[in-house]
Amino acid sequence: MERVQTLFNIKYPVIAGGMVWCSGWKLASAVSNAGGLGLIGAGSMHPETLVEHIRKTQQATDKPFGVNVPLLYPEQEKIMEIIVSEGVKIVFTSAGSPKKWTQFLHDHGIVVTHVVSSAAFAEKSEAAGVDAIVAEGFEAGGHEGREETTTMALIPSVRKATGLPLIAAGGIGCGQQMLAAMALGADGVQIGSLFAASEESSAHEAFKKTIVETGEGGTKLMLKQLAPVRLIKNEFYKKVEEAELRGASVDELKELLGKGRAKKGMFEGDLFEGELEIGQVASIINRVEPVAEIMKRLIVDYNSSLEQISKKVFVM
Amino acid sequence: MERVQTLFNIKYPVIAGGMVWCSGWKLASAVSNAGGLGLIGAGSMHPETLVEHIRKTQQATDKPFGVNVPLLYPEQEKIMEIIVSEGVKIVFTSAGSPKKWTQFLHDHGIVVTHVVSSAAFAEKSEAAGVDAIVAEGFEAGGHEGREETTTMALIPSVRKATGLPLIAAGGIGCGQQMLAAMALGADGVQIGSLFAASEESSAHEAFKKTIVETGEGGTKLMLKQLAPVRLIKNEFYKKVEEAELRGASVDELKELLGKGRAKKGMFEGDLFEGELEIGQVASIINRVEPVAEIMKRLIVDYNSSLEQISKKVFVM
Repeated sequence: MERVQTLFNIKYPVIAGGMVWCSGWKLASAVSNAGGLGLIGAGSMHPETLVEHIRKTQQATDKPFGVNVPLLYPEQEKIMEIIVSEGVKIVFTSAGSPKKWTQFLHDHGIVVTHVVSSAAFAEKSEAAGVDAIVAEGFEAGGHEGREETTTMALIPSVRKATGLPLIAAGGIGCGQQMLAAMALGADGVQIGSLFAASEESSAHEAFKKTIVETGEGGTKLMLKQLAPVRLIKNEFYKKVEEAELRGASVDELKELLGKGRAKKGMFEGDLFEGELEIGQVASIINRVEPVAEIMKRLIVDYNSSLEQISKKVFVM
Repeated sequence: MERVQTLFNIKYPVIAGGMVWCSGWKLASAVSNAGGLGLIGAGSMHPETLVEHIRKTQQATDKPFGVNVPLLYPEQEKIMEIIVSEGVKIVFTSAGSPKKWTQFLHDHGIVVTHVVSSAAFAEKSEAAGVDAIVAEGFEAGGHEGREETTTMALIPSVRKATGLPLIAAGGIGCGQQMLAAMALGADGVQIGSLFAASEESSAHEAFKKTIVETGEGGTKLMLKQLAPVRLIKNEFYKKVEEAELRGASVDELKELLGKGRAKKGMFEGDLFEGELEIGQVASIINRVEPVAEIMKRLIVDYNSSLEQISKKVFVM
């Protein structure tokens, strides 16, 4: 059994990323019920909304689940209080220092995983006492590191940098990619895009349809001067591209981005003016499916790919 | 035996990329003698230099080897004539249309592999009649596709798009990464950076030392308005970065780049003003070694990683 399965007490070492506007109670509980670890994405929730989603997840599954908290969130203290008082046992922190909350969460018996995009931050996270690491590559959706290191290049480096259970993220949308992540040294995988497009995702149906229609080269990492984010190439993307090509200032870019763009696109379904965050694997997602189907195919394909590759030993 | 081994008649499905200023007869013959496929990089050679390198390779090995020809090369016709008249049996073409030379090369009994960075171009290459495909991800060194698709995301898509023997490139610098590439569906791997830093590489020693010293996040894909190229972050890189941030025009960027930058950096060892092309895996390259040692470790690590992962079957 992989260490990730033992740490979280789950059947498969598959975590569903806690994505803004996608990861509500329906998705989190469906993933946990399917044998993975579902995460609620607190990054797009007001405190009272988070309480509601935690309680509904607890009603919908008796399996372990967690909450993802981006540490740049304005109401952090309140969110952390809710996590403790509502009895959440697993927290994934991201976009901030792992030093800030790890001790507090440990004091309340909560398992802490921190998301990084470099081996250097994996080391810092281990020093801060976290229990596991998610290492996320350039091909992932949403917000990312500035180094632009891909999952292929990143995982072996992080594996050397830390002895902690390691979860690979970015570019994982099928069994072959899951197997590749494990071959690179990961103990498990975190999957975003595939679950963002699932039936149980709380994203707008129009956004899910757009994910399915997104082809090869259909996303790009933009807004690197603010916080780098991978976007589907829609009308809003084109405005950002035009601004960046003419050397727009940070202030201009901030104004262009404005507030609530991700909600507008991903939750309200405004495909033109909204910010549509997704990973490169959107290109291999061909339909909106229930989580149970997605998980089953993932594990079946992983196992059959493993069987195939097992024969490929090279005689020295 | 993998199809790539059968096609090229080699022991291991490991191809050394035909890199400008690195891939001369010494590197090509060393890789072929070590059981892989060595390629001479014609992209940085005048026709008479190429003749010399082909003849020296033929003297230094009785194993198969090939020549890489970037199809934007000004003296293409002459290069192709030399390849035929000197009895080269394997050609890798890149940076251009696979339609142009495939028939000509086939007429002379030469095996043709084309390098692509998307599934769409893999399909076009198959339609053009090539014998194998190299699919190269965003993390690779040197020149790249505009889609920025990483190896992890790219290989399963290309695998679906074509039935041809498939060679993965980009982000492969150790046995774990080679195993991951095979797990993604590749029949073999093309490795650049690791061999660029080998003892037998014709690159300047100062450039090899810089590769060894390059850490995490030490490279970036630049000059996307001209031909995207992954560079080590030296003084020349900083000038490009500054120009791109202020929205410099294509003409300005062309003038900044000038002529002979790659030669200056990689062959003449000017670490400040030269263009230093390398892949993200430079961060895991820790020493300059003979090719035979590199190949041995690669295969040993591949086999031991395969043995480890073979046990990781998931019970449904």
